[in-house]
Amino acid sequence: MILYYAPGACSQASHIALIEAEIPHRLVKVGRDRRTDDGADFNLINSKGYTPALDLGDGTILTENLAILVYIAEKSGKLLAKGGAERWRALEATTFMTTEIHRNFIPFFRGGTAQEKEKAAQTLLMRFGTISEQLGNKAFLVGEQMTIADCYLFVMLSWAAMMGVELPQPLSNHLTRMKSLPSVIKALSAEGLA
Amino acid sequence: MILYYAPGACSQASHIALIEAEIPHRLVKVGRDRRTDDGADFNLINSKGYTPALDLGDGTILTENLAILVYIAEKSGKLLAKGGAERWRALEATTFMTTEIHRNFIPFFRGGTAQEKEKAAQTLLMRFGTISEQLGNKAFLVGEQMTIADCYLFVMLSWAAMMGVELPQPLSNHLTRMKSLPSVIKALSAEGLA
Ligand SMILES: N[C@@H](CCC(=O)N[C@@H](CS)C(=O)NCC(=O)O)C(=O)O
Ligand SMILES: N[C@@H](CCC(=O)N[C@@H](CS)C(=O)NCC(=O)O)C(=O)O
Repeated sequence: MILYYAPGACSQASHIALIEAEIPHRLVKVGRDRRTDDGADFNLINSKGYTPALDLGDGTILTENLAILVYIAEKSGKLLAKGGAERWRALEATTFMTTEIHRNFIPFFRGGTAQEKEKAAQTLLMRFGTISEQLGNKAFLVGEQMTIADCYLFVMLSWAAMMGVELPQPLSNHLTRMKSLPSVIKALSAEGLA
Repeated sequence: MILYYAPGACSQASHIALIEAEIPHRLVKVGRDRRTDDGADFNLINSKGYTPALDLGDGTILTENLAILVYIAEKSGKLLAKGGAERWRALEATTFMTTEIHRNFIPFFRGGTAQEKEKAAQTLLMRFGTISEQLGNKAFLVGEQMTIADCYLFVMLSWAAMMGVELPQPLSNHLTRMKSLPSVIKALSAEGLA
């Protein structure tokens, strides 16, 4: 498999998941100019232009982080319960983050006005509050083991820390804990962010 | 099961899916004041305050449209292939719509400025273009049968039609076709929109 990624972007969630799932993969970096580091036009690979995109190994390109994360989980039998409350809570949390948290970072990344950033920061505070309550003092968001939701959460928390968005204590703890995991260390290093 | 919904809101995707999946359910309407039509405070049912929310029958409340749609599909064995390309394309399209299309209607629903609406309409045109290409002249977005992606698409197309957002021909056709299906007719009527 080939993961098309941008360093530090939301594709990092899929990257960490691939490592945790022990799925052999190759990384191809996509630059801001939509060129891959092997010189291809990324828009011809994913016409939507954004990462992550996963080449399933037969040339099939799967896009959309959440779909890729579920694919990795089902392919490996890891990172997402096959049924029961833990499956639904993990899928719910990942959907929540991709629909309600991710987009509120846009003003920070795309040079929004101070007012736009302030509004987004307030929404983030509320949305992270929901996740923080769910996490409490557990090690992972759902159940005893890492799930796709933790992979996604890690990226959102890294962004928050980078942008100076306040984090409730349980989430700061999660960020610290995740950063010390071998899979996360490996992913950051492979993305040139070590 | 109990589906908490608002008439014409994105909860309609889950509503149509419940009917298509032939899962017995009861509807509870949530008003703009966050009161349910049986007088409860909806914020105590879903602290995020939005619909859809699904009571799984044992008091467990599942939120997030995409998670609910996958739940309905896996519970019933309908509306989503169990594996293979059709599973991933349907999950990808639904994720795409919930992350990239849904939110661009916000300026239309929340009294955005003319400029905000214009920008959102342009993005919608591009995003609907992606879905339209995937649909082509097929009856459903993925495979031969309705999937959760068509349920979600129907709501997005209804909104576009209501807001005067231009739709490519394949998507207008999809909207017309879906409107004639018994499940959709039943859902609209149950929501008081017939
Ligand atoms: N709906 C997509 C969004 C992906 C996305 O926003 N990717 C960002 C990185 S975090 C990106 O590649 N942005 C570059 C761009 O849109 O120009 C998903 O959930 O995967
Ligand atoms: N992330 C949620 C968003 C749901 C959502 O935006 N629901 C809207 C209806 S389309 C709603 O209830 N809005 C009322 C509100 O937020 O006040 C999901 O995907 O289910």
